[in-house]
Amino acid sequence: MTETRATAQVYHVELGPRSYDIHIEPGCLDDIGPAMAGLFEKPSRCMVVSNVTIAPLYMDRLRASLKQAGWQVSECILADGERYKTMESFAFIMDALMDAKLSRNEPVIALGGGVVGDMTGFAASCYRRGIPFIQVPTTVLAQVDSSVGGKTAINHPHGKNMIGAFYQPRLVWVDSLVLNTLEPREVKAGIAEAIKYGLIRDASFFDWMNSNMAAALDLDASVLSKMIHTSCRHKAEVVMADETEQGVRALLNLGHTFGHAIESMTHYSTYLHGEAVAIGTLMAARLSEQLGFSGNGIETQIRAIFQAAGLPVDVPAFDAEHWLDAMGHDKKNVGSRIRYILLRGIGEAFLAEDVKPDAIRHLIDSYQST
Amino acid sequence: MTETRATAQVYHVELGPRSYDIHIEPGCLDDIGPAMAGLFEKPSRCMVVSNVTIAPLYMDRLRASLKQAGWQVSECILADGERYKTMESFAFIMDALMDAKLSRNEPVIALGGGVVGDMTGFAASCYRRGIPFIQVPTTVLAQVDSSVGGKTAINHPHGKNMIGAFYQPRLVWVDSLVLNTLEPREVKAGIAEAIKYGLIRDASFFDWMNSNMAAALDLDASVLSKMIHTSCRHKAEVVMADETEQGVRALLNLGHTFGHAIESMTHYSTYLHGEAVAIGTLMAARLSEQLGFSGNGIETQIRAIFQAAGLPVDVPAFDAEHWLDAMGHDKKNVGSRIRYILLRGIGEAFLAEDVKPDAIRHLIDSYQST
Repeated sequence: MTETRATAQVYHVELGPRSYDIHIEPGCLDDIGPAMAGLFEKPSRCMVVSNVTIAPLYMDRLRASLKQAGWQVSECILADGERYKTMESFAFIMDALMDAKLSRNEPVIALGGGVVGDMTGFAASCYRRGIPFIQVPTTVLAQVDSSVGGKTAINHPHGKNMIGAFYQPRLVWVDSLVLNTLEPREVKAGIAEAIKYGLIRDASFFDWMNSNMAAALDLDASVLSKMIHTSCRHKAEVVMADETEQGVRALLNLGHTFGHAIESMTHYSTYLHGEAVAIGTLMAARLSEQLGFSGNGIETQIRAIFQAAGLPVDVPAFDAEHWLDAMGHDKKNVGSRIRYILLRGIGEAFLAEDVKPDAIRHLIDSYQST
Repeated sequence: MTETRATAQVYHVELGPRSYDIHIEPGCLDDIGPAMAGLFEKPSRCMVVSNVTIAPLYMDRLRASLKQAGWQVSECILADGERYKTMESFAFIMDALMDAKLSRNEPVIALGGGVVGDMTGFAASCYRRGIPFIQVPTTVLAQVDSSVGGKTAINHPHGKNMIGAFYQPRLVWVDSLVLNTLEPREVKAGIAEAIKYGLIRDASFFDWMNSNMAAALDLDASVLSKMIHTSCRHKAEVVMADETEQGVRALLNLGHTFGHAIESMTHYSTYLHGEAVAIGTLMAARLSEQLGFSGNGIETQIRAIFQAAGLPVDVPAFDAEHWLDAMGHDKKNVGSRIRYILLRGIGEAFLAEDVKPDAIRHLIDSYQST
């Protein structure tokens, strides 16, 4: 369902009692205070969680809008980066929520990218067994993907997003103008997740991204806008069809089994999430070719768009057994099988249930011999 | 809904896709392996979480039954006691789950009392965003109350159960014979929670507990059996009516606002949970009298049954401001109100929305002047 008014576009994510809107509008950061009036009986206390990079840029405006609408605002500022998506940061947010004495009906607002949103959402799901939670995404990645759908988590040293919850936000509030301050590297990493929707379920969007890559990298307003709208629409459709990833939602993990292993093996300090996903997607494409699911050439086609986006495309060199371990294969169990998202073609992802360790060994070997 | 076969009794907790059975049967600990066959396509890996007190007594039998049925069993053994219901223990369980490489469909089993069940349930809710979870309660408190209903949590240094989730088990498997090894002090603490159902919604059960207290303390099989059945029936009815505590379920917190404050102020090391709840219930009774909600004499009546159960009845001496702080009152906010569960009479609990700090100061003063 879509409603258009002036420059605002609203997608409704219908999930019964957990339904919410994704509101996309340039400049809307300054309007969040009044927007929250529709969600809460009356303004009371709230807490904004952000990080040391984003808070200096946007906290003043967010706080001003909230205070203007009558909210008492506490703040919790985290370090910046995936390597801080830890149990320690989670405990830090909990301490801040306890100090602020938020009650069960008072909201927490995530102002930041995927890391801030994932951690804040998980904290919101746990504090007093769940308080309302609002996403204000400030990166391309968060605006096109992670802020929608209720997947929240922190990382475990042995695996990405291993500790978390399905916990839907009450509102996702997207202001594409905040992307103007984003590092180019972060823009590219977010574009990787937008391309993902094209690869999974929308070949024409893949083509459109290919044709508009230069403008997207330049933060052209109308191209960004279409990229965000299309991505949010796809994400909302998939989440409505399968909220807790029993089936079709798993396709959104294209490139993520390999990507998470890359992030974990490099201790979350070398690649941004979207960069690791780009490399992981290329690995999934090559595996699709090797197993005969897709014709040859698909990997080359995908490498070309990632290169045009300025994303890394080289697979880091690790021993095959290290890869298998990082992806959760039980090497002692010969029957061990992991589910991979593979491709039959551009726009046609599917879930392969029975990929065996030897297929992964063969894949890893193919990089070492080139 | 109730189904009786031989000595087994089964209560079905109907919560749509989160429905499950409470199976109560003396000696059933040895039968859990086959019972799990109905829940899972085929046996694979599972993990049992227990503590250093319970594991030496019952882990061998549980493991034998699981292995016999084809399960591969990992174990995670915690320290014993409410003071270990911490973020550190939660992280310890997460590490064990990661090491065991449990997948999203493989269950974790809590073998222990309320602390083990609450922590294991919370870990199950978070690990890979939720894996199946089975309760095998081994204390009176866990069998009559905490193992049913899906409230899971750990404590924060500033508040009990502040970090948790509503996460229903797939099965609650109750063997009252394991209570034979329980410390008498633990038996008494559990009886406090059983009495609670009488106070909240069943005056005749309160009278029955009064008449059968000596037999209950002696672990008389038929009295224990009726106490557990009646408690589980009440708990199941309340949870079905209000799974996430939007309304009537809050009544089960009778004595808990004061009780949690007592546990928190004494750093979870002086009182068992049930003991703190007993004292808290007496405080709620006196407050009910002071505010004119109940006639005089209700506190005396409740003190008598707790004394007969050998439970502590003296309110620990703390400054009123310390109490208010521990109960989450915002002292800077003159409008601050906390919800308390109070009594109009035996069997008639209700939610008082607007108890002000001064009423609590008056209550605390009344103990210091006696």
